[in-house]
Amino acid sequence: MATKRKRDFPVELTRRLLEPGPVILISTAWKDQRAIMTCGWHMLLGWDIVGTYIWDANHSHELAKRSRECVINVPTFDLLDSVVGIGNCSSRDVDKFDRFKLTAVEGERVHAPLVGECHANFECSLIETRNTKLYNLFVWQVVKGHVAPSPKYPKTIHYRGNGEFMVSGEEVQRRKLFRPDMLPP
Amino acid sequence: MATKRKRDFPVELTRRLLEPGPVILISTAWKDQRAIMTCGWHMLLGWDIVGTYIWDANHSHELAKRSRECVINVPTFDLLDSVVGIGNCSSRDVDKFDRFKLTAVEGERVHAPLVGECHANFECSLIETRNTKLYNLFVWQVVKGHVAPSPKYPKTIHYRGNGEFMVSGEEVQRRKLFRPDMLPP
Repeated sequence: MATKRKRDFPVELTRRLLEPGPVILISTAWKDQRAIMTCGWHMLLGWDIVGTYIWDANHSHELAKRSRECVINVPTFDLLDSVVGIGNCSSRDVDKFDRFKLTAVEGERVHAPLVGECHANFECSLIETRNTKLYNLFVWQVVKGHVAPSPKYPKTIHYRGNGEFMVSGEEVQRRKLFRPDMLPP
Repeated sequence: MATKRKRDFPVELTRRLLEPGPVILISTAWKDQRAIMTCGWHMLLGWDIVGTYIWDANHSHELAKRSRECVINVPTFDLLDSVVGIGNCSSRDVDKFDRFKLTAVEGERVHAPLVGECHANFECSLIETRNTKLYNLFVWQVVKGHVAPSPKYPKTIHYRGNGEFMVSGEEVQRRKLFRPDMLPP
């Protein structure tokens, strides 16, 4: 699996990658520790604001809370077995970059490593900690985006629970049905 | 478009429908008003807890806040043009059930109407209002689920912004790669 070349991507277009609801990999680092987790529970809360659920039993919860940083990585179908494997072991026991032969790429704005093999990487800073305590909900500001220029529509994976995944399919557009002010110029 | 027959669905399995990230229709009612909105910003916050972003400029925001109830409906590809139309007009100006020839089905646990033509309907009660004020984030407890027994995997629509949608594709499973405790018995 090769590291994918990326281009800078405007943070206010984060929805283009995350709104369809793909499984993401969240990478974190704190002092000499680093972690990757698989996550299907996330949402946009603004053009450059993302909420992610990180269970407090996950090692990533502690690293995210202490560092107040993460990278949201968007893997594609070719990484499916690694994505499942990452979700089924703990960063307490193993370095997942090593185990799954993934490339830790240095970020520009955060210390957490980007997963080089993913189609997109969003460097994020934590906005607040109240929801972290209440719901294990981390509210992130996206501070830097990196997206591979091709394919235009990555083949993403979407979890249903029970070991089952939906893979992204056909693309359709309905721009003519939109009010002009609902679309970018 | 026909109303779909549903079966009772365990609320703790809500992820099966929502975690893949489909566009949803949120229906609300308050006194003599009712509304439907299109929403792509939502996430699981627990097995039977869902967060949805409802912009405070949307009429649905007020109805949801006042009634503290909603129904989360999952439309399929055959409803795409209605889903787009619903997102491009306001319930302040028009009754969307009438305009889009949708059937308002009575709920069991909430006053908000279910959209009969959708594949799944989740009746929801509001848990708190702090996040409503902070982020336009409504945190819902799912109190009753209704899901059509077939097809097993509905053809859902997933928004990318810019008038573009991804349609759910192939289904794959990787149960053998999961730790047994990560799967239901």
